[in-house]
Amino acid sequence: MGLKENVLEALEAFLPRNALLVDEEVSVRKAGGLHTEEAVKAKVIVRPETTEEVSKILSICNQASQPLVVHGGLTGLVYGTRSSSDQLVLSLERMNEVEEIDPVGRTITCQSGVILQTIQEKAESENMIFPLDLGARGSCSIGGNISTNAGGNRVIRYGMTRESVLGIEAVTSDGTVLSSMNRMIKNNAGYDLKQLFIGTEGTLGIVTRCVLRLREAPISQNTALVGIKDFALIIKFLKHIDSGLGGNMSAFEVMWKEFYEMVTNFLDESSLPLEKDVPYYVLVESMGSDQTKDEDHFEFLLNKALEDSIIINAVLAKSEKERLALWSLRDDVEKQAQYGPTVMFDVSLPINTMENYVSQVQDNLQQHWKEFHHIVWGHVADGNLHLVVGVGDLEPNTIKKIENSVYEPLKLIGGSISAEHGIGLEKKPYLHLCRSTEEINYMKALKNTFDPKGILNPGLIF
Amino acid sequence: MGLKENVLEALEAFLPRNALLVDEEVSVRKAGGLHTEEAVKAKVIVRPETTEEVSKILSICNQASQPLVVHGGLTGLVYGTRSSSDQLVLSLERMNEVEEIDPVGRTITCQSGVILQTIQEKAESENMIFPLDLGARGSCSIGGNISTNAGGNRVIRYGMTRESVLGIEAVTSDGTVLSSMNRMIKNNAGYDLKQLFIGTEGTLGIVTRCVLRLREAPISQNTALVGIKDFALIIKFLKHIDSGLGGNMSAFEVMWKEFYEMVTNFLDESSLPLEKDVPYYVLVESMGSDQTKDEDHFEFLLNKALEDSIIINAVLAKSEKERLALWSLRDDVEKQAQYGPTVMFDVSLPINTMENYVSQVQDNLQQHWKEFHHIVWGHVADGNLHLVVGVGDLEPNTIKKIENSVYEPLKLIGGSISAEHGIGLEKKPYLHLCRSTEEINYMKALKNTFDPKGILNPGLIF
Repeated sequence: MGLKENVLEALEAFLPRNALLVDEEVSVRKAGGLHTEEAVKAKVIVRPETTEEVSKILSICNQASQPLVVHGGLTGLVYGTRSSSDQLVLSLERMNEVEEIDPVGRTITCQSGVILQTIQEKAESENMIFPLDLGARGSCSIGGNISTNAGGNRVIRYGMTRESVLGIEAVTSDGTVLSSMNRMIKNNAGYDLKQLFIGTEGTLGIVTRCVLRLREAPISQNTALVGIKDFALIIKFLKHIDSGLGGNMSAFEVMWKEFYEMVTNFLDESSLPLEKDVPYYVLVESMGSDQTKDEDHFEFLLNKALEDSIIINAVLAKSEKERLALWSLRDDVEKQAQYGPTVMFDVSLPINTMENYVSQVQDNLQQHWKEFHHIVWGHVADGNLHLVVGVGDLEPNTIKKIENSVYEPLKLIGGSISAEHGIGLEKKPYLHLCRSTEEINYMKALKNTFDPKGILNPGLIF
Repeated sequence: MGLKENVLEALEAFLPRNALLVDEEVSVRKAGGLHTEEAVKAKVIVRPETTEEVSKILSICNQASQPLVVHGGLTGLVYGTRSSSDQLVLSLERMNEVEEIDPVGRTITCQSGVILQTIQEKAESENMIFPLDLGARGSCSIGGNISTNAGGNRVIRYGMTRESVLGIEAVTSDGTVLSSMNRMIKNNAGYDLKQLFIGTEGTLGIVTRCVLRLREAPISQNTALVGIKDFALIIKFLKHIDSGLGGNMSAFEVMWKEFYEMVTNFLDESSLPLEKDVPYYVLVESMGSDQTKDEDHFEFLLNKALEDSIIINAVLAKSEKERLALWSLRDDVEKQAQYGPTVMFDVSLPINTMENYVSQVQDNLQQHWKEFHHIVWGHVADGNLHLVVGVGDLEPNTIKKIENSVYEPLKLIGGSISAEHGIGLEKKPYLHLCRSTEEINYMKALKNTFDPKGILNPGLIF
């Protein structure tokens, strides 16, 4: 697995000095993701500037059977970029050029090392949006978003990353440049090869460039927090509001009571947006085209839900400040630190199984521990729940018991151990719970077709 | 390529008599698609009822290196299901069970032989919609829609078939049942294998079951026909109306002057919705949540476009009858018959290249013929144009010259020879115009991974 001498020589022979980082140049960098405070580990970090350089590097590595680990913005949460001190790392950080923005075709074309927020801002400067949005926007790269098929805050309206990618240029393990830089929404000319590089965590090829789909910027935004008595009413409220808003619902975030407690327990009663101890809280948002009309309609829908006893209470943000305050509760996941060491999960499951699933996990945890923290929230409308579990320590054996408690019940209900974070190294031992032997065999067959020597991100996923 | 005797015996040994059609049972059937009036050709048509039967059939065929052609609803337009009189055909027509509709998770689960319209109606009975919609809805099967990644009338709002498929069960060439019957919008647990069976025209496996995503039914609908002076203003109008409607624009269909002439030249002046001889006509539609409010807003946007001279004139449908009358113009493609034999095309290209592209095709045709019909219309907002060309005959050499005139200019501008119909046998000779050698090589490598003996739909695509 270490870096072969002749490979390093071959790289040095054609790359400029600043394309290769060694020693302290490596160790001053942070590893990011789940191991934020650690240094990056690598023998050498190679930083190409062009697709041609990536191609040449892979061609050299493939000939020498030299494995390498690919780095984007290092914000992943499943140890997908973990490398060791004797390994070769390829970082796409210097491939950060936005090549073109087309306001007519509503596309943006860029290299894969471009930071998500740069793309968002570029789109906004043309009065459009790139709808993918997540907490790591300021440091994650679009190549990483593509490789992990990132989800985020607006999936219910605009889909996962996959739905926003029109074209991809990727380099496969032997250095072949596979350029499928399609710019159209519709293109059924043969197999859609770009799909193979979306969500495959860099194991089938390295994404070097892409064409992304932009959307018209929404003009109005309305956000409310509502309290709901039981899970069946959440489902009723979802149907009511989604249907009532036409195509305009852009978020439906559910927080279980314990989550609301976690993010508000430092606030005094008077500054709470809604009282405590309601079983569920839903943050719902619409994006439309006319602030006044849309707000009237949104309020009408909330009032109807109150009249029909679907919701207990509701607060509608009346300013951008109030809107951000509501979102800051939902986003304040860091508050889990008050419960000591915790493990965070990202699962998906059919909505009608969620209530039972959460109590099943609760039961499983109770079998191991008398006291624990079990915090649940999620996007819900798209089947995605996040769970945080804290039991006091993070010994390997503890983590294993927590993971089993959370993952095992997913098998029977057809859930997934990863809704949006991917598998990486972290979730690999549990992949069989939600993928059949036949599926894993075909994943391996694809890997073998695209990377027969197994040099790209070895060991990831399966 | 013919049907081997021992294969037929092995099929007869485990299948009921009515699962196998021979002789007149075959020849009384219509071939459908582009050769509507011809009889289906096949030595035997095998009609399994379950995934297990499909698996057993493929296992037998694979062992005997017996090729077969897969039939769905036979509504394709690129000769993707053409079979010859000595071939084995597998038809999915008896796999037509809707297994489950989940109004909470908003999914429908069914076998792949179910007719699209059945799925639409089932969804509507639960006050939801399955958004995929196309002219062949009454006879195309969902398996065929998936295998060709069908587009249709609502792509701009809901995406291609790919965006509505959550899970797939497919049988690969050796009889392996690959069941990825995911029901969630988000699932990043390893490679998303279902993508490989969407749009690959049955060459990598036979889709036997699927889970589809349903949406809340829109409550309001507004439709208008507008006249526009030049192509730059179409682009301006698209931006104006799409942005103005928020998430609610559901159609943006452009008809060139010659198309409007074609579908209205039998009407007298007084019954025309808009005067003739306007360069472009746009049929625009929104789907929302409140008929009165949405209609006001739609009218406001049209008036604004009139004031700003983006459009010349507009007619807003004031009843369902008027709405259908506007759509019937757009859908009346059959009227091309008045121009004698014609060839129809389905291409996609970036919007800002469309105007030049259409005149380039016009120039190319002029180099071959003094007189010809060249009719253009399309979804436009999603990059998709349809063209009809009639020059008087359909001799092979004529067709070739027409095809070259239409396809050649796509190469330089990064367009596609197939936006939504697929490649089949018909467009295979032109695939290289919009796919690189590297792309075609990887398509072949995938084919070889999933179907090493090449028994599934041999000869399609590449």
